Amino acid sequence: MRVTEMLRAYPADLGRVDRKTLADCIQACLECAQACTACADACLSEQNLRELAKCVRSDLDCADLCQATARILSRHTGYDANLTRAALEACAVACRSCGNECERHANAHEHCRICAQACRDCERACRDLIDALG
Amino acid sequence: MRVTEMLRAYPADLGRVDRKTLADCIQACLECAQACTACADACLSEQNLRELAKCVRSDLDCADLCQATARILSRHTGYDANLTRAALEACAVACRSCGNECERHANAHEHCRICAQACRDCERACRDLIDALG
Amino acid sequence: MRVTEMLRAYPADLGRVDRKTLADCIQACLECAQACTACADACLSEQNLRELAKCVRSDLDCADLCQATARILSRHTGYDANLTRAALEACAVACRSCGNECERHANAHEHCRICAQACRDCERACRDLIDALG
Amino acid sequence: MRVTEMLRAYPADLGRVDRKTLADCIQACLECAQACTACADACLSEQNLRELAKCVRSDLDCADLCQATARILSRHTGYDANLTRAALEACAVACRSCGNECERHANAHEHCRICAQACRDCERACRDLIDALG
Repeated sequence: MRVTEMLRAYPADLGRVDRKTLADCIQACLECAQACTACADACLSEQNLRELAKCVRSDLDCADLCQATARILSRHTGYDANLTRAALEACAVACRSCGNECERHANAHEHCRICAQACRDCERACRDLIDALG
Repeated sequence: MRVTEMLRAYPADLGRVDRKTLADCIQACLECAQACTACADACLSEQNLRELAKCVRSDLDCADLCQATARILSRHTGYDANLTRAALEACAVACRSCGNECERHANAHEHCRICAQACRDCERACRDLIDALG
Repeated sequence: MRVTEMLRAYPADLGRVDRKTLADCIQACLECAQACTACADACLSEQNLRELAKCVRSDLDCADLCQATARILSRHTGYDANLTRAALEACAVACRSCGNECERHANAHEHCRICAQACRDCERACRDLIDALG
Repeated sequence: MRVTEMLRAYPADLGRVDRKTLADCIQACLECAQACTACADACLSEQNLRELAKCVRSDLDCADLCQATARILSRHTGYDANLTRAALEACAVACRSCGNECERHANAHEHCRICAQACRDCERACRDLIDALG
């Protein structure tokens, strides 16, 4: 996994953060952002699109926050614990919200089922990292 | 301002949010994201770049969160108060942090002075909108 | 306009590019990205959403390319003419495509009318800057 | 790989594009965007940062274009061949440029070596997909 390789190649001190927890969270954010982007688009091709309008919106918000969070977590120079925590918190809220919305359509639409899982995984990864940061 | 025009053209109910407070916050996020992106780049051309490394990093984080927040605030369908508040909170934290860092270099570098002001304006706009959301 | 202020504060040589053409293009990209994000969301609240699915998709692509282009144009250190031109070209193509799609709905939906105008303005600003870069 | 799962779950026709080539390109864009974001940050912590200023800038541009391209490629509704090709072209140019710059520092800095590889892989994936689109 390149995320782990890049963490290992960071030339300064990464602090006391657990590297695996951090790498897993970056990876989960990247996967969730992609799944949400693809799910929003898949919804646009569904017959019952009108019922999926809220799902599209949740997907788009979640993709934007996961992406911003993945970027922030990929930076270690001048580490700012408050900012990292606030970003993770916002990301976890977006993942919770989008996961709940996608789950409502998981039986009808496979893309919502997969996306709900990506959101659950990412929410947990954010919570794990918040705990690990102390 | 196109932000205001687009708010006015939204076909459904915008809820009880004050439109001017919302439009001002979107505009402040857009301007702050651009200022931070430009400030990070301007730092890269400074002689004392080594002393500005933390400033570049703060700029990049702040740009990413302002941009995600501007997008989230531009969406009204399926409004989610918890998510909006969490994004605004993270954005305000990033603006506070970046504003403080840029201010330390404001006397030496005009781009840091302008960027610090953009961060202050955006932090206040986020706080105002958090208050307006109740 | 902060975009212009930030250009003026850049500490190194900006090259032979016309500053007004550059600033106008950055501003047009920012406005178009926001208009497209808001138009996609407004479409989600329309009764005839099914007919607007392609419009939502065009909006999302255009927002992503305008945003990336605004960021690239906000950087001047280590300027790369090929990359700048390729980004502007992709952005102009996205604006042309989204402008055409939005225009089809401009009579029915005010947000599509405004967004089409933002796309036309941004496409022209990109073409003007491509010409100015030589 | 969730990218592949999401492609498989797309409810409409994906057209004649080879799914593996498409999935590989999305994945390569995601990995390259992350590697570039991390490499830019790692450069900020290097002693010879002044010599790496252009590398940071290339990294940031490349991250932005890879990210936009990953999103565009994740959407299939209302497919627009011209736009897809223009985005892939811009992304390939950015990867070429960033790969060249990172390669210059690959012996000195492991993060530049890994990032150069990610850029090469992503450039090839974009070229493969351009060819596959015909």
